[in-house]
Amino acid sequence: MDPITSNMMQERVDPEALKLFVSKVYQNLDLPKKNADICADVIISADLRGVDSHGINRFDMYVNELEGGAIDPRAQPEIKSERASAVVVDGKNAMGAVIGEFSMREAIKRAKEFGTCSVSALNGNHYGIAGYYAMMALKENMIGMSMTNACPLVVPTYGKKVGFGTNPIAFAAPAKKERAFVLDMATSGVPIGKVELMRLKGESIPLGWGVDESGKPTTDPAKVCIGGGLMPLGGPAETAGYKGYGLAIMVEILTAQLSGALFGTLLKSWKTDHSHKASLGHFCAAWDIEAFMPAEEFKERMDEMITLLKSAPKSDGESRIYVAGEKEFEEEERRTKNGLSILPKTKAALLSIGKRHGVDTGFLM
Amino acid sequence: MDPITSNMMQERVDPEALKLFVSKVYQNLDLPKKNADICADVIISADLRGVDSHGINRFDMYVNELEGGAIDPRAQPEIKSERASAVVVDGKNAMGAVIGEFSMREAIKRAKEFGTCSVSALNGNHYGIAGYYAMMALKENMIGMSMTNACPLVVPTYGKKVGFGTNPIAFAAPAKKERAFVLDMATSGVPIGKVELMRLKGESIPLGWGVDESGKPTTDPAKVCIGGGLMPLGGPAETAGYKGYGLAIMVEILTAQLSGALFGTLLKSWKTDHSHKASLGHFCAAWDIEAFMPAEEFKERMDEMITLLKSAPKSDGESRIYVAGEKEFEEEERRTKNGLSILPKTKAALLSIGKRHGVDTGFLM
Repeated sequence: MDPITSNMMQERVDPEALKLFVSKVYQNLDLPKKNADICADVIISADLRGVDSHGINRFDMYVNELEGGAIDPRAQPEIKSERASAVVVDGKNAMGAVIGEFSMREAIKRAKEFGTCSVSALNGNHYGIAGYYAMMALKENMIGMSMTNACPLVVPTYGKKVGFGTNPIAFAAPAKKERAFVLDMATSGVPIGKVELMRLKGESIPLGWGVDESGKPTTDPAKVCIGGGLMPLGGPAETAGYKGYGLAIMVEILTAQLSGALFGTLLKSWKTDHSHKASLGHFCAAWDIEAFMPAEEFKERMDEMITLLKSAPKSDGESRIYVAGEKEFEEEERRTKNGLSILPKTKAALLSIGKRHGVDTGFLM
Repeated sequence: MDPITSNMMQERVDPEALKLFVSKVYQNLDLPKKNADICADVIISADLRGVDSHGINRFDMYVNELEGGAIDPRAQPEIKSERASAVVVDGKNAMGAVIGEFSMREAIKRAKEFGTCSVSALNGNHYGIAGYYAMMALKENMIGMSMTNACPLVVPTYGKKVGFGTNPIAFAAPAKKERAFVLDMATSGVPIGKVELMRLKGESIPLGWGVDESGKPTTDPAKVCIGGGLMPLGGPAETAGYKGYGLAIMVEILTAQLSGALFGTLLKSWKTDHSHKASLGHFCAAWDIEAFMPAEEFKERMDEMITLLKSAPKSDGESRIYVAGEKEFEEEERRTKNGLSILPKTKAALLSIGKRHGVDTGFLM
């Protein structure tokens, strides 16, 4: 867990009980059980992996959108067009997780046949952690990738207004004895939640996280949240923030331009607008390792590379070099064993949601 | 052109004459004319686009490798294994540009049939600008991607020794009236050449470019060059340098792990070792836009997005927001018209090479 949030966490909750609760609320909001279970699994996976910004803290946002009629609870994604290893999925304004899971299953199925497959989806919604879908490839001995665009929170290099979202890139590749390599990163330097938290705590932020309303880098989190915005990965131009900006637009192209979804500033604010559809775009790809080389050999090679990285000399004062996903796997082990910590305000939201939808919240007591 | 290098440049040279010279030297080094022309085109493209770090300044490196026997001048890449839209190319230790061009042509051919195609190549060599291969897709109404691993120059987050290369990601997508989107970025914050130049000029570098031999961020370029190393995109951990590190490893996986090439610290130094083969890995992919939506509609959508980005409010004191590739296209127009500028030491190297290989250097006078 992020050290800056850990001391604000309270309440131990059983992940399985929480997942069941989420699924039941979704079912009461008219989702078919199968889809409700997928959405619940994606949310609780984020909590288990320590990605608190995309877990149960956000559940009320999805509920708001369903209650506000922004999302169609009974919609089922469909293939809109296809050519062997290239597919466009019409998300039909279903829950984002339902579209993400459907698209990745299709990519995996076709990668088995053709070696690789790319899927671009329109009429999408906020789909939680991108890593969930990329990781679906792992148990198939495949490499997985997932991306989504998102409502505007990030300011382009030399700009002063938010122009695009935190547009994440997730990439997962299996290893043999070592844990899988799982990169799951926003193309901004940090998520907005991290800035909001520093503001709440009255602390300053490092230069490079965000800009104020004039477009200048600032250490004041309030200025980033009000009128300013996040900086792309890399920070200002002199430390190559234009690369993070470029990666974010690459994500817009694969998710939204290729599918026909909305993009950039045309997207609504997820936080404030709960009645209009989001029209996000998603993208995923799978590569069947066996189409390139024996999967066992690949996984042994991954082990060798990971060992090389982890055993390299450490910076003075540091004791460990991590590989992407490693911290999250360790957090998952801890949280699966010890349960989840939730914030008091999250508990209050869950109690309110449970009451509104007639779902028992006894597990929270 | 990079402003910090422009004042050190001298000598106007005709790009076409220079390209012919390069090709003739390569032919004298036993490359078939077709392959020599490809290699020359890749080098001069870098110069025209303003990517001086990968242009004629590096020609002597390729010549050194050919003269030293590290590269097989007569080798022709071959398909090693394939499944519809997934291909492994054996580069056979040919020139990197020959392998890159061969692989991307194969990806484009198969994307026409299957919608998309990915190619991973082993037995590769330094292949110049990654953007060259990604851009091959543009005239086919396709989206192109290219990546390569490279000799170790970058230090992992919390490490103090170089563990992997600047591992670039290039991504190109066509527009209609606007110029194409062409992202061509090292996954380090800056290239080593930029640090070397600041050292030469006796200037300090911004924090976030590199670390010293203890792994700590430094403003002294000499400490980065001797015993230290570059930082991944994002800089130190607090500004998310682990994301740049993660992207670099993603590139290692797609280029080297998937093909069977060498990776990370197993790779030789390109600068000092001219007698052993490099065994680099390359990766490329193509997406046929027509497999997803009408290409004309896609390109109009690209225009709309690019216009939105460029017309957004500018940061105080800035007059322009750029889109990836825009600066390079403008530089290409200028340099095509005005000729190339080369450094005195580059001119000296070209004169020496011309003499050794019996190729006329009259165009340099």
